[in-house]
Amino acid sequence: MAEQNASTALLTDHYELTMLSSALADGTGERPCVFEVFARKLPDGRRYGVVAGTARVLDAIADFRFTDAELAQLESTDVVDDATLAWLADYEFSGDIDGYPEGELYFPGSPILTVRGSFAEAVVLETMVLSMLNHDSAVASAAARMSSAAHGRPIIEMGGRRTHEYAAVAAARAAYLAGFATTSNLEAGRRYGISTRGTVAHAFILLHDNEEEAFRAQIAKMGTDTTMLVDTYDITAGIETAVRVAGPDLGAVRIDSGDVGPLARKAREQLDALGAKDTRIVVSGDLDEHAIAALRAEPVDAYGVGTSVVTGSGAPTAAMVYKLVEVDGRPVAKRSTHKESRGGCKAAVRRHKETGTAIEEVIHPAGSPPDPGPHDRPVQIPMVRGGQTVDDLPTLEDSRQRLRKALVSLPWEGLKLSHGEPAIPTVFTQ
Amino acid sequence: MAEQNASTALLTDHYELTMLSSALADGTGERPCVFEVFARKLPDGRRYGVVAGTARVLDAIADFRFTDAELAQLESTDVVDDATLAWLADYEFSGDIDGYPEGELYFPGSPILTVRGSFAEAVVLETMVLSMLNHDSAVASAAARMSSAAHGRPIIEMGGRRTHEYAAVAAARAAYLAGFATTSNLEAGRRYGISTRGTVAHAFILLHDNEEEAFRAQIAKMGTDTTMLVDTYDITAGIETAVRVAGPDLGAVRIDSGDVGPLARKAREQLDALGAKDTRIVVSGDLDEHAIAALRAEPVDAYGVGTSVVTGSGAPTAAMVYKLVEVDGRPVAKRSTHKESRGGCKAAVRRHKETGTAIEEVIHPAGSPPDPGPHDRPVQIPMVRGGQTVDDLPTLEDSRQRLRKALVSLPWEGLKLSHGEPAIPTVFTQ
Repeated sequence: MAEQNASTALLTDHYELTMLSSALADGTGERPCVFEVFARKLPDGRRYGVVAGTARVLDAIADFRFTDAELAQLESTDVVDDATLAWLADYEFSGDIDGYPEGELYFPGSPILTVRGSFAEAVVLETMVLSMLNHDSAVASAAARMSSAAHGRPIIEMGGRRTHEYAAVAAARAAYLAGFATTSNLEAGRRYGISTRGTVAHAFILLHDNEEEAFRAQIAKMGTDTTMLVDTYDITAGIETAVRVAGPDLGAVRIDSGDVGPLARKAREQLDALGAKDTRIVVSGDLDEHAIAALRAEPVDAYGVGTSVVTGSGAPTAAMVYKLVEVDGRPVAKRSTHKESRGGCKAAVRRHKETGTAIEEVIHPAGSPPDPGPHDRPVQIPMVRGGQTVDDLPTLEDSRQRLRKALVSLPWEGLKLSHGEPAIPTVFTQ
Repeated sequence: MAEQNASTALLTDHYELTMLSSALADGTGERPCVFEVFARKLPDGRRYGVVAGTARVLDAIADFRFTDAELAQLESTDVVDDATLAWLADYEFSGDIDGYPEGELYFPGSPILTVRGSFAEAVVLETMVLSMLNHDSAVASAAARMSSAAHGRPIIEMGGRRTHEYAAVAAARAAYLAGFATTSNLEAGRRYGISTRGTVAHAFILLHDNEEEAFRAQIAKMGTDTTMLVDTYDITAGIETAVRVAGPDLGAVRIDSGDVGPLARKAREQLDALGAKDTRIVVSGDLDEHAIAALRAEPVDAYGVGTSVVTGSGAPTAAMVYKLVEVDGRPVAKRSTHKESRGGCKAAVRRHKETGTAIEEVIHPAGSPPDPGPHDRPVQIPMVRGGQTVDDLPTLEDSRQRLRKALVSLPWEGLKLSHGEPAIPTVFTQ
């Protein structure tokens, strides 16, 4: 099979292993280190980010093993020397990981994941950890804005065809985490237990001699509580035919093209006049958070969202980095002229008003929390201890609930879709 | 293992299977059909697109099988009925596929892939085919502009950490197809035989007590023909130390931050003054095609490109669609108000001047080519016949060469990086 791996260990950059090789040779590879994942900034104009992908990271670390196949590949391409191959053959992460749970909000500088271990064992995870967190968090961050704009109306994720076939599966998970109701992606249904949805495409209508025959075939198989696609030819005629064929108990009609706001209004009037008062209206077709928000006053019952969510709605990657911040207990940082870097292992508390509204993200040296405020909440949780994933990590449903609560805690400006500053400031203490 | 599948068959949308179920029930599923993959338009302002992903599609179709695991999942979630499950258990694509070879240019409306078969067997491939072509073509289209801007200087692809971990592997392949020299992605090295590269990250420098120790450790393991990262602390001091430690035969220095143009110039002067006249300068750090073009006059020997290439440089998906265009030999098309759709199975010839410069993309009904011009070239090639992939399909190297030649054939305006119209017009004949 072309698309599968027996191990996640080669989903990484060449230089992780050449660095490793040099560090093993001079003994520095054994130095105790701390790496920190954070984003220097949010995507342009965004007010918050949503952490997603952590559960996938923890699974992938457990599968990060160099089997004979990986070792043979590294040997035949001369990536590393024999001593390194021998070390990789025994590789198993034995360190500790703390981090922001999935569904948590993050802000510039938030220590989203903290990896403690020897340099050797921690450095080789960099690329894979970043791939997963950057992708999934980008999708979840966009999806949360859409869920928020939809104001309780359900959204179905249907963007799999617009992104890599496995990215599609992770994107469906991230969108669900961020409040989407369902997905079209069957593999996401299998892997993550997310409820999947779908009825027919325009091809099904075109396949038949006319729209009515297509509708009859659909109802014969799916019953009347189905969603009929009514915009293949003429929407008004399509709705008339759909209700005639299915009766007034028709589940829903879907409009996938055109100016969906006015079309939804017209469709609602027509459905009501035909007695199909409970027939829902589903709209889709190039919707993003702004289009969803603009439809708030329209008689729309559900949204289908594709391209914009799987591509992060203009921000397809979260720009998180995995930086070495401590070696042998001493803080280290690149002294670059234009990128802010702070050495030292850090943790975070989120400070709130008495009302529960978040005020600031306080990032402090690990072990030196700020003077406690009455409504502070530490944000990181333990995830791995001695190489073993801890018990009772949040489930996908937990993460979904966590995000819902976190969004409620934001100052109201933080939920605005317009460009702006982060919803709360990040404060670094010494 | 969390990230692998025994089959590609669930990398698809729910509605493909519910449509299938209805079409099998009323007999329309057996109607001979033609589906066509095309893009209504190029990403905003782009002048050409590059086809990529087709080889992955053909592999994935061969792996598109419903094993017991997939059937059990579909049964337990009630996606389809028993008759459909039985049909899926025997699924094997038996139709024909023609298409634009990888590395070919495409324009609005170009029939990039033509799938002929029964409705049932062809419709279920839609989502997976689009995922692969949309992702890989988006990356290749961006990468081609970067290669073109680099004007022969090598580019290393290093964006894996900024995209989904498997998208990273496909992106490395697409970038290589589009002219990148190498990749950092080890899995792309394994799967596609692409040469991988890498030395060290800033973490390796920070791990050591000082820069000199880090450089010594690197050279001890990798020899002097390596690339030293000189911008962790102070670039001038870094270069001085690097040459002192490695000698004037040092392979290269890498600058990963700051205003790389002036820094490269300064580095070149310093290296020359130190006698390291053959030491190359590699620059990286948020480069895209425009940044690469702006560096043309600078003494840069190679580029490292990450985020921008794996995210399609602003166009992360190619917006290709998979449309039913023919049923039982009769053209079909959605009659939508705002999207141009043309029924009927089509093919394309690219028309050229005597000099070899492309003039137009002529899209004609299949079997009815236009009056032949002296320098016409049919663009599609046969790919699958009776379900079997044809022999001697182009290799990845062939596709790389094909693109190189195709870019040379464009009118010169077509290679401009600025926003503009497609390099050649698309002409539809009846």
